[in-house]
Amino acid sequence: MDFLDEPFPDVGTYEDFHTIDWLREKSRDTDRHRKISIKSKESYWELIKSLLDAWSGWVVMLLIGMLTGTLAGVIDLAVDWMTDLKEGVCLSALYYSREQCCWTSNETTFDDRDKCPQWQKWAELMTGHSEGPGAYVLNYFLYVLWALLFSFLAVSLVRVFAPYACGSGIPEIKTILSGFIIRGYLGKWTLLIKTVTLVLAVSSGLSLGKEGPLVHVACCCGNLFCSLFSKYSKNEGKRREVLSAAAAAGVSVAFGAPIGGVLFSLEEVSYYFPLKTLWRSFFAALVAAFTLRAINPFGNSRLVLFYVEYHTPWYMAELVPFILLGVRRKTTLLGKYPVLEVIVITGITAVLAFPNPYTRRSTSELISELFNDCGALESSQLCDYVNNPNMSRPVDDIPDRPAGPGVYSALWQLALALIFKIVITIFTFGMKIPSGLFIPSMAVGAIAGRIVGIAVEQMAYHHHDWIIFKNWCRPGADCVTPGLYAMVGAAACLGGVTRMTVSLVVIMFELTGGLEYIVPLMAAAVTSKWVADAFGKEGIYESHIQLNGYPYLDVRDEFTHRTLATDVMRPRRSEPPLAVLTQDSTTVEDVETLIKDTDYNGFPVVVSRESERLIGFVQRRELTVAIKTARQKQDGVVSSSVVYFTEDNPQVAEACDPQPLKLRRILNLSPFTVTDHTPMETVVDIFRKLGLRQCLVTRSGRLLGIITKKDVLRHMAQMMNQDPESIMFN
Amino acid sequence: MDFLDEPFPDVGTYEDFHTIDWLREKSRDTDRHRKISIKSKESYWELIKSLLDAWSGWVVMLLIGMLTGTLAGVIDLAVDWMTDLKEGVCLSALYYSREQCCWTSNETTFDDRDKCPQWQKWAELMTGHSEGPGAYVLNYFLYVLWALLFSFLAVSLVRVFAPYACGSGIPEIKTILSGFIIRGYLGKWTLLIKTVTLVLAVSSGLSLGKEGPLVHVACCCGNLFCSLFSKYSKNEGKRREVLSAAAAAGVSVAFGAPIGGVLFSLEEVSYYFPLKTLWRSFFAALVAAFTLRAINPFGNSRLVLFYVEYHTPWYMAELVPFILLGVRRKTTLLGKYPVLEVIVITGITAVLAFPNPYTRRSTSELISELFNDCGALESSQLCDYVNNPNMSRPVDDIPDRPAGPGVYSALWQLALALIFKIVITIFTFGMKIPSGLFIPSMAVGAIAGRIVGIAVEQMAYHHHDWIIFKNWCRPGADCVTPGLYAMVGAAACLGGVTRMTVSLVVIMFELTGGLEYIVPLMAAAVTSKWVADAFGKEGIYESHIQLNGYPYLDVRDEFTHRTLATDVMRPRRSEPPLAVLTQDSTTVEDVETLIKDTDYNGFPVVVSRESERLIGFVQRRELTVAIKTARQKQDGVVSSSVVYFTEDNPQVAEACDPQPLKLRRILNLSPFTVTDHTPMETVVDIFRKLGLRQCLVTRSGRLLGIITKKDVLRHMAQMMNQDPESIMFN
Repeated sequence: MDFLDEPFPDVGTYEDFHTIDWLREKSRDTDRHRKISIKSKESYWELIKSLLDAWSGWVVMLLIGMLTGTLAGVIDLAVDWMTDLKEGVCLSALYYSREQCCWTSNETTFDDRDKCPQWQKWAELMTGHSEGPGAYVLNYFLYVLWALLFSFLAVSLVRVFAPYACGSGIPEIKTILSGFIIRGYLGKWTLLIKTVTLVLAVSSGLSLGKEGPLVHVACCCGNLFCSLFSKYSKNEGKRREVLSAAAAAGVSVAFGAPIGGVLFSLEEVSYYFPLKTLWRSFFAALVAAFTLRAINPFGNSRLVLFYVEYHTPWYMAELVPFILLGVRRKTTLLGKYPVLEVIVITGITAVLAFPNPYTRRSTSELISELFNDCGALESSQLCDYVNNPNMSRPVDDIPDRPAGPGVYSALWQLALALIFKIVITIFTFGMKIPSGLFIPSMAVGAIAGRIVGIAVEQMAYHHHDWIIFKNWCRPGADCVTPGLYAMVGAAACLGGVTRMTVSLVVIMFELTGGLEYIVPLMAAAVTSKWVADAFGKEGIYESHIQLNGYPYLDVRDEFTHRTLATDVMRPRRSEPPLAVLTQDSTTVEDVETLIKDTDYNGFPVVVSRESERLIGFVQRRELTVAIKTARQKQDGVVSSSVVYFTEDNPQVAEACDPQPLKLRRILNLSPFTVTDHTPMETVVDIFRKLGLRQCLVTRSGRLLGIITKKDVLRHMAQMMNQDPESIMFN
Repeated sequence: MDFLDEPFPDVGTYEDFHTIDWLREKSRDTDRHRKISIKSKESYWELIKSLLDAWSGWVVMLLIGMLTGTLAGVIDLAVDWMTDLKEGVCLSALYYSREQCCWTSNETTFDDRDKCPQWQKWAELMTGHSEGPGAYVLNYFLYVLWALLFSFLAVSLVRVFAPYACGSGIPEIKTILSGFIIRGYLGKWTLLIKTVTLVLAVSSGLSLGKEGPLVHVACCCGNLFCSLFSKYSKNEGKRREVLSAAAAAGVSVAFGAPIGGVLFSLEEVSYYFPLKTLWRSFFAALVAAFTLRAINPFGNSRLVLFYVEYHTPWYMAELVPFILLGVRRKTTLLGKYPVLEVIVITGITAVLAFPNPYTRRSTSELISELFNDCGALESSQLCDYVNNPNMSRPVDDIPDRPAGPGVYSALWQLALALIFKIVITIFTFGMKIPSGLFIPSMAVGAIAGRIVGIAVEQMAYHHHDWIIFKNWCRPGADCVTPGLYAMVGAAACLGGVTRMTVSLVVIMFELTGGLEYIVPLMAAAVTSKWVADAFGKEGIYESHIQLNGYPYLDVRDEFTHRTLATDVMRPRRSEPPLAVLTQDSTTVEDVETLIKDTDYNGFPVVVSRESERLIGFVQRRELTVAIKTARQKQDGVVSSSVVYFTEDNPQVAEACDPQPLKLRRILNLSPFTVTDHTPMETVVDIFRKLGLRQCLVTRSGRLLGIITKKDVLRHMAQMMNQDPESIMFN
């Protein structure tokens, strides 16, 4: 007659801003499996249901891939259209971007931009004049106006409907995947508002990328589809497996790099990543990449594949420190007046960006141009070299040439663009709109790399008798490729900001499609990581997590101090003793008082206060619910009833004593324990690998204290001379 | 005056065929780090030493990469030369293979094989006649003779010098990486003999590959360089990090696939793979790949990159089951007479292989030809199509054509080769010579795939009005590429044998160099895995591990039974009580008797036999050494001395009592404990994730029993209705 045999509500859920217990989630999932496999032997219908359940993981992956790919495609198309809207409209169809407009109007390639009659700039449309200072000023004015409108809309939508939609979301997703609960962070509203405001923010021309937020969007999709299957919606551990795969799909569509996406999820974002998830993530990432390709075949979001010969680009290593100095201080800026801040920054960005052709266009177009090699047909200003008279050689074998005036003016513009980008990106990041860091960091790196590349190229051309050039650079040969320098610079800068390593190299390699460049890319990644680590061990996401005080136990932090569990456990010497329950001598009233007076998440249960031998652990939440339910449903349970956790009824002293309340069902009989002599490095390892929430400390069978995840994190912060109070959640 | 303060020998080492304790290794490494970082503040010399120590990981990786790449290059060149030696010699230089001979002799490409005067077949050299039945028989005879000689040498060398050099070595490496000790398995002799016999075995023409053994060779290199640095040689846990990276380097050189190698190591081989190792593995894999490329630029081990258009190859899925049936029974054959067995199999292989051109050549050449698309310049028999009169179109856009007589005869030969390969591979695997399964499996899959591909192609050509072809196959178009079918078939077959998933796709994609083929490859990998899983959950390596009774706790096996720790722990109810020591009432003699009478690896220490409260765990090995040392060095320690593990001396009852022996230093004060109610799924999880060797079971602070890794594995085997006695080691 144990009323706890029936399921009762709210058991197994967690409160907002709390940490989940991975072991518990896993064992709940195993229970589920066991029940299903027993049931499946009963009837064909149950067998089919169990097969559906087994397949639901793949179905969820398919759905996530398809929705993520679709959303990314829609975002791409919308951003293209709205970015171009700042400059003009397509007369043949208002919803065409310039590229589509010129493409459909007269079958020319989109390089011939100026010969596109269907596309009209605002000044031309409104006044009929396309040239002259008046038209320029009008275009300038409208460009800034559109930008302000877009960013105002973005920040307002975020403020009013979904405050969680701001930023890139990656730090929070890392924290959530490590087992933290932030309700609504991956909700439907966040998904909708983030998608819309991302388009607005990117179109406004602010120095931000859509790649990071796409990971957030993908995780929202993942969470959405989790709610379709009770296997995932009711188990926070299983849900996180799906979210890990969704993050891979997000990176996959952001860069068109499915393998890189999986590795990013593995290396950078995920916490618990079983091999089964690896395989499913790969599936989701592929589906997403192909869905995106089906929707947006122009695909200007994925940078153009380019084929350059591989030379020795090791000089880039010198560039890295300088770039890193620029990008390391981004986390400190937090505006108090978000709307005003966004408007001001957008205004400044738009006003300063318009005159410079390298900042006016979209950042991914800029990167694509910087990566490009100067073929014979290239019309870009960056390729304005003085040509040799004999141009009869094949297109892809052009020797080094002296730079023309176009290249020199481009260099000046690039230098200005570099300073502008660095400064404005620092101010942009941290604003209350969806904003990613990947593309701006890559742009900074690519500009710097291209400048260095052109400089080296011209030096090699003019001084090919210098010792360093002598061996690999004969006159008339094509020996320095500035595009490659840009690519390596982009990788170095991105690596410095995020501290990605393998996934960075793989993403860059999938972006550019050539295994030959893997060596310079890897050199850049490793150099930038070392240089950046010299400034501080944490990447931008970890800094952000710390800033927010989330309880994130980084797998990479090595704990090397000599402290023991006894130094970390509560209660400390000066504190009152641990709040415990005894197995058969506490009354309902005592329990209720304990619950009221403390805010602990659970209480150890001991044999008696004298022996202090541990028998189990009971969750506060379950205790509250159980007592409340018992008081309502079970006769005879009053304040003076004894609560007992043993198998057998305690001996009732007198007949008039009230009926005792048996609560063994909610007692966790296998709480995790360590001895007080356990080194903290082992404790940290156990917390990390098993995903514990708390751990009891004993000495020769006696309960001494408790260590929670928060205690561990605070201790680690203290050991690293940081403020332990910065860890705010448990 | 504690003599145990000095280090004493043999502490921290393990016996052969025993399992290491990962937590202990990790904490020993942290101690080392701590000491070095304290010392480094003392003097500049110590600072430099500490920096060298920090960099030694990268140095080891560099050395491993370079040696692995060099060995792979040497093996490639030697195999080329010796394979060709079976057919003839190069007159200009005896050490040239046919390819090098013809390449250097007259600057033609190596397609013009027959126009190479410097290369002479044996019959031509010995009799002057290159044609006619006499020459054919002589060539045939010498071919078989050479093959027998090579394989005899190989098997004899393995038998006499290094029995561990046989097989692919991957199952043992998996076991070693999971924490098992097999002394000499990765030793210098094994390295030397495996390298030499691998060349002999591959050259003998047996149906085996060099890819798996290359992983073993790479791990031997890793072990070799570990011995240079005490950081790695004295810590079995750190050593395994290096070995994981070495395995990645091995796959990297085997397939020319650095990313695939890292993923293979992560997915298939490694057990404990921290992120730091991921990055270092990538470095080692890259260095190895580039060293190999520098040594052997011809690189016929890496299959030729080929560029075919992507069509719908989904029909391959049907092929998979049939292939898998053929490759699933390979583990059962174990010859009693290894030398004779090898000779017989080699003889049969050579006799049957010579007449068929598809089995005579080396397997990787065969795969390369099967993967190839039929361009206009292709001279292979497989490309003998009836040409259209208008051949003026570009080389790479050839429409579907009817097959010529060459293709039909090639089909017959391929069908025979398929049967031959399947049968002979089953008999070859398990012989006592170095032998890999990758290439033979791929060959079987590629042959089957090519046959199906040609069949579909001809069906599509002759019946392009059928519904299935109608949509994507107009007349005159190039719509079916048999080479792609071969590639997908190879991937499917390899996936079925090894159960690799992501790493398989990445390796195939790096082999063939085209992101477009990722979808059919992935479909093949996923189908073959599902089909193979229907026959049995284990891949060939896991089966092999089980066959040998190694204690391998697979991360992929889900434990879903409802047993508790109390069901698994020893002692069982019928058994004598657990052998324990008390903290201050056991004498030296008692301890020595206990050590002599039992073969346990360690003993729990309790407060007293009455209370049974656990205070720690002491290793048998350390106890033995400590008592032996104490008897020699410490005065007054006799058989009746009391051994105590407490902080303070026990009270000596009378003055004449012998001096007690303090052994607290060797007592592990933080043994791992679980309660008897802990579900076994949690226990399995803890063993897996923390790499435990044993775990003590308690109930309310009382010691009840012990669970070792062997107990866990035996319990798992029992639950899966397997023989628990098959787990032989602890």
